[in-house]
Amino acid sequence: MKELAYNVEASRKLDILSKGAFLTTYADGKVNTMVIGWGSIGYMWRLPVFTALVRQNRFTHELLEKTGEFTVTLPYVDLPEAISICGTKSGRKLDKLAECGLRAVPSRKIAVPHLGIPGFHYECRVLYKTTMSSENLDKAIKELWYEKEPGDYHTMYFGEIMDSYETQ
Amino acid sequence: MKELAYNVEASRKLDILSKGAFLTTYADGKVNTMVIGWGSIGYMWRLPVFTALVRQNRFTHELLEKTGEFTVTLPYVDLPEAISICGTKSGRKLDKLAECGLRAVPSRKIAVPHLGIPGFHYECRVLYKTTMSSENLDKAIKELWYEKEPGDYHTMYFGEIMDSYETQ
Repeated sequence: MKELAYNVEASRKLDILSKGAFLTTYADGKVNTMVIGWGSIGYMWRLPVFTALVRQNRFTHELLEKTGEFTVTLPYVDLPEAISICGTKSGRKLDKLAECGLRAVPSRKIAVPHLGIPGFHYECRVLYKTTMSSENLDKAIKELWYEKEPGDYHTMYFGEIMDSYETQ
Repeated sequence: MKELAYNVEASRKLDILSKGAFLTTYADGKVNTMVIGWGSIGYMWRLPVFTALVRQNRFTHELLEKTGEFTVTLPYVDLPEAISICGTKSGRKLDKLAECGLRAVPSRKIAVPHLGIPGFHYECRVLYKTTMSSENLDKAIKELWYEKEPGDYHTMYFGEIMDSYETQ
C-alpha cells in the first residue's frame, strides 16, 4: 500500500485555491471580486461543477443573487496586496479591482469578466444554490465558523463550468 | 492564452469518478456499496472535503443516515460487472459485495471499510448534509434528473476526508 500525501494529483489546483483565489461577480455595471480559500470541483448532473461558498452578508452574494454567474481565478502569481485588500474590504463602497491594481477581462461564455492575471480561470453559471443552516451541521464547525453575526451562513452556489482556461 | 481541456490536471481523479466509483457504507453489521459518477473534491471549513450525492430512496442513504461515515473508492481497474451490478441493484435484499466479487477491507480512521481493489480511497466523516429541493434548481436539471419518483432528490453529504491513500 503506497501512501500519498492528501490527494496529490487532484489537489494541485485545489492547493492554489486554498492559498487564495478570486471569485469575481458583475451586476449593474459593477465588477467585484473577493478572496476565497474554500470551494470544490467535481461532476454533478453529468456536468463539471465548481461549488463556491459565499456568506449571505457579502456584497458578492448580492451580485450573485442578481445574475447567477461568476468566475473563479486561481492565480499563478503571488499577489499578497490584492489578497489582503480583496480579502478584507467590501466592494459595496470601494472599487476593489482598481484598489488592488487588478484588471477585468471579458470572458468567453458569460457576462462576468475574469481577472487579467496569470492563472487558471473558470466561467460558471449557477445550476443550484442552497443556504446552509445550523441543522445537520457538525457542532465544532458551527462554533468555529458560524453564528458570530447575522447572515454568517454560506450560500453554496453550484456553478456549471461553462469554460475554463489558463492565461500566462 | 493557452487553452486546456477541462481542468486537465485536477480532473485526473475526477475523470475516474465520472466513469464510475464506489461509495461504501456500513451499519448494523452490513456493508453496502453503490456506484457513483458524481461528486466533488475541495476545501471547506479549512478541511479537505468530499461531497457525495445520494438519493433519499437509496439503501446507501439509510446506512449513511445511521453512521455519518462513508468511503469512496476510485478504481484503477475496469470492473464492468461490478459497476453494472452495484449500479443497478439495491443492497436492501442483496449482499452486493459478494454478488460482485468485491471484498471489504478495514479502513484506518473510520468504521466503514473500503473496497479491496486497486484504486484511490477516501475515508470520510460527514460534517454537513442538506437535501436538495426544487427551489433554486435549474429547470433543465430538474426535468432531466428529478421528480420522476418520490425520494428522488439527492442528499448532499459533505464529508471531511479523514484519510486517503492508494492501493495497488
